[in-house]
Amino acid sequence: MYSSPLIEKLVDAFRCLPGVGPKSAQRMALYLLERNTEGGKKLSAALEEAIEKVGKCNSCHTLTEFEICNICSSPSRNKRICCVVESPADVYALEQTGTYRGVYFVLMGHLSPIDGVGPEQLGIDRFLQLVDEYGTEEIIIACNPTVEGEATAYFIAEQLRGRELLVSRIAHGVPVGGELEYIDGGTLSHAMSGRKPMNLD
Amino acid sequence: MYSSPLIEKLVDAFRCLPGVGPKSAQRMALYLLERNTEGGKKLSAALEEAIEKVGKCNSCHTLTEFEICNICSSPSRNKRICCVVESPADVYALEQTGTYRGVYFVLMGHLSPIDGVGPEQLGIDRFLQLVDEYGTEEIIIACNPTVEGEATAYFIAEQLRGRELLVSRIAHGVPVGGELEYIDGGTLSHAMSGRKPMNLD
Repeated sequence: MYSSPLIEKLVDAFRCLPGVGPKSAQRMALYLLERNTEGGKKLSAALEEAIEKVGKCNSCHTLTEFEICNICSSPSRNKRICCVVESPADVYALEQTGTYRGVYFVLMGHLSPIDGVGPEQLGIDRFLQLVDEYGTEEIIIACNPTVEGEATAYFIAEQLRGRELLVSRIAHGVPVGGELEYIDGGTLSHAMSGRKPMNLD
Repeated sequence: MYSSPLIEKLVDAFRCLPGVGPKSAQRMALYLLERNTEGGKKLSAALEEAIEKVGKCNSCHTLTEFEICNICSSPSRNKRICCVVESPADVYALEQTGTYRGVYFVLMGHLSPIDGVGPEQLGIDRFLQLVDEYGTEEIIIACNPTVEGEATAYFIAEQLRGRELLVSRIAHGVPVGGELEYIDGGTLSHAMSGRKPMNLD
């Protein structure tokens, strides 16, 4: 169908991206070739360089090209608070809020025995080692509120039993700006059971 | 916000793609780095190679890495019928129908004096030269049914005046599977004025 095998190869290559079907892949390929070869060159080079150099942070396991990532090596971060998340995207989402000043530990997934993902793949050993090393005082478990995420959260909390530290789980409830009418039952029961006394001072 | 300058650069580079905002760009970058470095390497290589080698077909001006594209050089194509389109994507769309066996001429745009696109930029001279060279018998003008597309179609038809050949325009009307109720007025008046006698044999 294509007038050129190279274009066909490029369209095929774009299809490996998440959420990109044949039409979008073709649109991307033609857009870069027709109108933005500069952008295309930059993308190709950035991709090659990132794939070659980016690996895991030795401390928190997030993606970085350094031995120790920017966050772990920052002196302004409080190493006594550690937030456990499933993926680097979760780190970026939390960083965007600008309110958290502790460090992270990135599991790069969740427990999923059916896919062969156990505590070893998530680096739980390394995590426990870090907790002792940093003298962590609080662990905030921010795994996703899915079945696997909850199981992972409980597993980690279980591993921390006996250590003198506070283990907390991020709050689940009605999102800010949300309307009760449109919130699912599971979230609503979380919101009810997690209710807090109103402070009228 | 990102734990790594290289990831930030990659996310930025993905934003040059059409229809990709900051969230999608981040998702694409992390997906390739976390889960599909093979696909990422392929994409980077395919993009580099295509940008380096793909240029315009000397005959029909579509994108190809050859001097003359696959379609123009195919012996099974009827060079006496030529379809004029605005972009390579239009060629691919028509090729997918599998019903057209003539050749194409790709304008790579439409007349748009405000953007500095005149007959010269569209390669109209080369097109007229090809018409004479191939002894073309029919020209099908398949510019988009937009204001600029219509102007371009009329301009091309005007240039062909005096030559002994049939100049046609693709039909505009109700799309197959469409419902009259939801079709805009412009399309409906085209459909009415372009009506055809029903053949009951």
